[in-house]
Amino acid sequence: MSTIYRTRREQLLTAFTEQGIGAGLITSPTNVAYLTGFMCNPHERFMGLLLNADSKEAVLFVPLLDQDAAVEAGFEGEIVPISDTQDAYAILGGRLSASLGTFGVEKHALSMIQGETLGLLLPNTDFEDLETAILGLRLYKSDEEIVKVRHAIDIIERVVDYAAVHAKVGMSEIDLTAELEYQMRKLGADRPAFESIVLTGTRSALPHGKPGAAKLTHGDYLLIDIGVQADGYCSDITRTFVIGEATKEQERIYETVLAANMAGIAQAEAGVTLASLDAAAREVIVEAGYGSYFTHRVGHGFGMDVHESPSLHGNNQELVRNGLLFTIEPGIYVPEIGGVRIEDDVYIRSDGKAEVLTSYPKTLRVLGG
Amino acid sequence: MSTIYRTRREQLLTAFTEQGIGAGLITSPTNVAYLTGFMCNPHERFMGLLLNADSKEAVLFVPLLDQDAAVEAGFEGEIVPISDTQDAYAILGGRLSASLGTFGVEKHALSMIQGETLGLLLPNTDFEDLETAILGLRLYKSDEEIVKVRHAIDIIERVVDYAAVHAKVGMSEIDLTAELEYQMRKLGADRPAFESIVLTGTRSALPHGKPGAAKLTHGDYLLIDIGVQADGYCSDITRTFVIGEATKEQERIYETVLAANMAGIAQAEAGVTLASLDAAAREVIVEAGYGSYFTHRVGHGFGMDVHESPSLHGNNQELVRNGLLFTIEPGIYVPEIGGVRIEDDVYIRSDGKAEVLTSYPKTLRVLGG
Repeated sequence: MSTIYRTRREQLLTAFTEQGIGAGLITSPTNVAYLTGFMCNPHERFMGLLLNADSKEAVLFVPLLDQDAAVEAGFEGEIVPISDTQDAYAILGGRLSASLGTFGVEKHALSMIQGETLGLLLPNTDFEDLETAILGLRLYKSDEEIVKVRHAIDIIERVVDYAAVHAKVGMSEIDLTAELEYQMRKLGADRPAFESIVLTGTRSALPHGKPGAAKLTHGDYLLIDIGVQADGYCSDITRTFVIGEATKEQERIYETVLAANMAGIAQAEAGVTLASLDAAAREVIVEAGYGSYFTHRVGHGFGMDVHESPSLHGNNQELVRNGLLFTIEPGIYVPEIGGVRIEDDVYIRSDGKAEVLTSYPKTLRVLGG
Repeated sequence: MSTIYRTRREQLLTAFTEQGIGAGLITSPTNVAYLTGFMCNPHERFMGLLLNADSKEAVLFVPLLDQDAAVEAGFEGEIVPISDTQDAYAILGGRLSASLGTFGVEKHALSMIQGETLGLLLPNTDFEDLETAILGLRLYKSDEEIVKVRHAIDIIERVVDYAAVHAKVGMSEIDLTAELEYQMRKLGADRPAFESIVLTGTRSALPHGKPGAAKLTHGDYLLIDIGVQADGYCSDITRTFVIGEATKEQERIYETVLAANMAGIAQAEAGVTLASLDAAAREVIVEAGYGSYFTHRVGHGFGMDVHESPSLHGNNQELVRNGLLFTIEPGIYVPEIGGVRIEDDVYIRSDGKAEVLTSYPKTLRVLGG
């Protein structure tokens, strides 16, 4: 495995050289993991990977208490532990040449105050954002990465099915969520990939609602938007059910969202704009008269993080390319009735075709209440 | 409840005026919740609370899909929804006066790139860090907040006890973690306050280790460091058990950590330095000959976040004050034997005395394997 990380670092250093960057500091824990294999949440402590384009040297700064874990992860470069009483920036500064010219940093992952601190450490230095270079690598998922994504999807689809089988009238959203997150763990997930969304009744019309004490009730929607992180990669799926019996309008909303989901997927292939995927799905919903109830973009990239580039919104004129991995998740949220969202995970293969990695059935399922 | 939030905003505006800040933008989701009652994770979308010291106006910018939740949370000021296709900073810019003079921002919560974007929006403006002003409020926990912390502690202590009763030889760290996180949810927690740490054998010597496939084994330590977030507030506790039977050295390490824990707590009262708490606990461990195996600070503040100010490390000469809430959690980590950590939650009451809010027993408990 360590070859993968070395290769990624070499690719990044090539990008450094193209951008005229002498050295760079990577501080987002996910990017550090992507480049070293060492996944660590340092909380408020300092962690960073310093890469030098000339010397090819890689130095990993880690909190002292994570040093053993860093060694265990198999990072081959130098590991510099920093204790709680040491000044991390002073230690970092000791490793930086004052004559760097251009220094790469993650302007999205560094805070404004960290940026100011680095500015004081390196007063005559231009700071260049590494975002494009690193995300440019992470944007395109390799076959090895898709194997891990498929594993995370496999887990979450079992959990969705568990929900469909075990959801019962009278159970609260919170109780069902507890059961589902327990299943995630038991099936080998490291954690939910995001705050599980399990909503019923009119609450399902809150696109980012939080499970509460509301109880599953006959005749209501049950919207389940869940994902896991397993072995460093995420899954993200939404299915919406009806409990007991669906009204005509619930069915109509559901079928509209399903048609929008399929229109978005049908549009997906290398060469079209990302905006056109949003438009394809949105058009179906607008034509059915629910346009004002579809209040978000049609999807987002994901991978190691559950939200990554690209953003599939109506103004994004970038093109769909081989290797992209993203969600397609149109929804209709009618405050008085509830919400329906149907979300799949889509991969653009090396032949430019879209493959839908999620396979959980999408025909409206009425759960025995 | 909305009175609390208004009062906090007024206190912050007083701090603005003292610092010569005309207006400020609060962007950390926790701080927005602290000041409005609206808890939201906007992910990569923009969310912020704009406060104006002169007009006393409060404007909350939220992603369009979270607008209903913001209204439901009872925020009384103006709510400005931003859709995925809009430019959040352009909308924000439209609300900012170009002649602000000094503008307050959270330099820890804003990214470096956001800082640069704001710099372009407000070219002739000095940016002042709001960190001190906001954390200056959050540092001191009110009685109402401690009620919520006690609730989060009550949940987690039931979960610790569940672990003590249900841990069995042959169970994996992951399986036990799944059971414990399920209990957290069932007992009403919103989520684990941090990645649960459930480690056994020599793996317990990794202070931030992650539960794995390792199985609970007769004669090993079982270290459990867990917490929950409930109603916006966290708990954080560590207990270490031995499975089956303890060796003399395991007992000696345990008793040393327990004595250090109690020494740290005994030192805690208003007026002493925070460093002295670390020193009191560390001295016990150093004298027992394990000094090099205690690789982290003795504790950290917590509250809405599981890691907050103050940091209880050996160089922190700030004083213990009434209203502080922090952990005391010394540990000894011997790679060949395993690790012991004993962590309590301590509150400095209005009379300056320390109250230990955690009450789970600390005498060495040998679990029936």
